[in-house]
Amino acid sequence: MQRYKLTVEYDGTPYYGWQRQNDLPSVQEELEKAIKNFCGVHCPVQCSGRTDAGVHARGQVVHVDLPRNYDTYTVMMAINNHIIRLAKQAPSISVISVMLVDSGFNARFDAKKRYYQYRIINRKSILVLEQNRAWQVPVPLDHHLMHEAAQYLIGKHDFTSFRAAACQANSPIKTIDNITIKRFDDNIIIDINALSFLHHQVRNIVGTLKWVGEQTITPEYINNILQSCNRSNAGPTAPAAGLYFMKVEY
Amino acid sequence: MQRYKLTVEYDGTPYYGWQRQNDLPSVQEELEKAIKNFCGVHCPVQCSGRTDAGVHARGQVVHVDLPRNYDTYTVMMAINNHIIRLAKQAPSISVISVMLVDSGFNARFDAKKRYYQYRIINRKSILVLEQNRAWQVPVPLDHHLMHEAAQYLIGKHDFTSFRAAACQANSPIKTIDNITIKRFDDNIIIDINALSFLHHQVRNIVGTLKWVGEQTITPEYINNILQSCNRSNAGPTAPAAGLYFMKVEY
Repeated sequence: MQRYKLTVEYDGTPYYGWQRQNDLPSVQEELEKAIKNFCGVHCPVQCSGRTDAGVHARGQVVHVDLPRNYDTYTVMMAINNHIIRLAKQAPSISVISVMLVDSGFNARFDAKKRYYQYRIINRKSILVLEQNRAWQVPVPLDHHLMHEAAQYLIGKHDFTSFRAAACQANSPIKTIDNITIKRFDDNIIIDINALSFLHHQVRNIVGTLKWVGEQTITPEYINNILQSCNRSNAGPTAPAAGLYFMKVEY
Repeated sequence: MQRYKLTVEYDGTPYYGWQRQNDLPSVQEELEKAIKNFCGVHCPVQCSGRTDAGVHARGQVVHVDLPRNYDTYTVMMAINNHIIRLAKQAPSISVISVMLVDSGFNARFDAKKRYYQYRIINRKSILVLEQNRAWQVPVPLDHHLMHEAAQYLIGKHDFTSFRAAACQANSPIKTIDNITIKRFDDNIIIDINALSFLHHQVRNIVGTLKWVGEQTITPEYINNILQSCNRSNAGPTAPAAGLYFMKVEY
C-alpha cells in the first residue's frame, strides 16, 4: 500500500457534486472508477472539501491508497487515460499532479487553508466562451464597494446569516482569512480563503456582495446582516457555475 | 435602412468557421438567421475578418443594415434571444455590443488593426475547464525564448513561410505591429496584432514558436525560417481551439 496525494481539476457541470450518490453522477464515483480500472481494486478517495453540484475545481486535493508502488507520473497518466475512456464525450476530470505522501497524510484533516474563487461576468449579453464558467450579472456592479463590504466578513464570526439550511457543521463560527475583489474588464474576481467554510457560505456571501455592488445595500450594511445571524437577511445563493475550489494549503 | 456595428463573441468549436457554407454550420449563417427572425428579412452581415473552423472570437466586428431604426439595446437583446431560440443546446454566439454607424462604415475595409490572442496551457494532464479553449502542450516551454524569437517577426516581411497553401491574399507581405508572450502559471498567452494577416499566419507562427519554447530551434533561427520564404521550414499549424480574435481598431 502506498498513499498518494492527487491534485484534481474538474468541470462541475455534469456532476451532482463531489460526493458519491446512488444513481447520480459524481466526481468521486468517476474518479474511483478510473482508479479501479487502472489498478484493479476499489480504492476509496478522500477529498479535502466536498463541492456542490455544478461547482468547479482547479485544485481539489484528495488522498488515496493504491495497492502498489507506482511512480507518480504513471499514476497521473494512467488515471487520466482511464477517465478519457470512461467519458462518453469529453472528459470532465483531470488529475493535474500526483505526490507520494506518508500513510498519515489526510487530505481533509491536514488542510490548513482552502482557497475559493468566484467569477462574475458583469455584462448584459449571454455568456458563450464562459458558459457554465461564471455568473452573468447584467446590472452594473461597483467592485470597489463590494471589496469594502467584504472586509467586514474577515476574521472570526458567527456566519449563520450565510449558512445553508442543510449545513451539517457543528458550529456556525468560522474564520475568514482574506477576501479580495478585483475587476479585469467585465470580469469580477472574488478570492476568499479560510481554514474551512460552511455549506454555501461562499455563494451566499457572493449573493450578498452582489446587492452591495448594485447598490441595493451599503457596504456597511453587510455588517448588520452578519450580526443579525439570520439567513433570511442575506442575499440569495449565487449560482454554482461561478465557483472554483482553487487550492489547499497543508 | 440603418447600419449597425455589432461586436460578437463566439465559441468556434461547433462551426466550420465564420463563413457561410452549404449544409455546414457557420457563425455567419447562425447570426444571419437570428437577425432574420428578429426583423423579418434577410440582412447579410459583413465581418472584419473571417475565422477558421474552431477559432473563437471575443470581439469579432460586423456591420449589418437593418430595415428599421431600432435602438441599440433592442438590437442586442433581440438578436441574442433569437440565437438562444435557434440553439439546440447552449448558444455559441453572443452579441456583446451594438453601435449605430453611418452607412459608409465598413467592418472589413475600415479596420486599422486586428488583435489576436493564442492561449497555450503548458501541462502534462488533459484539459477540462479549458477544453476547446486552449492548446495543451505537455513539453515544458520557455516563454522568454519564445518572446525573444517573436521579436524577429515584427515589422514588414514576406511571410510566405507562415502562410497556408490555401491563402487567397494577393501578396505574402504583411506588417506585424506587435507580439508579446507572457506566462501566468501554466498559461502561455501570445498576443499579436497587425492591420491584417495571411491565412493561418498566427497559428503557423505559434506552431513555430512552440519549437523555440521546447528548444528544438534557437530564437534567432526563426529569422532564417522567415527569410527562407518556404512554408516547409516553419512549424506545424497550431490547433484552432487556442486562437481568439480579440478586437478590431477603426
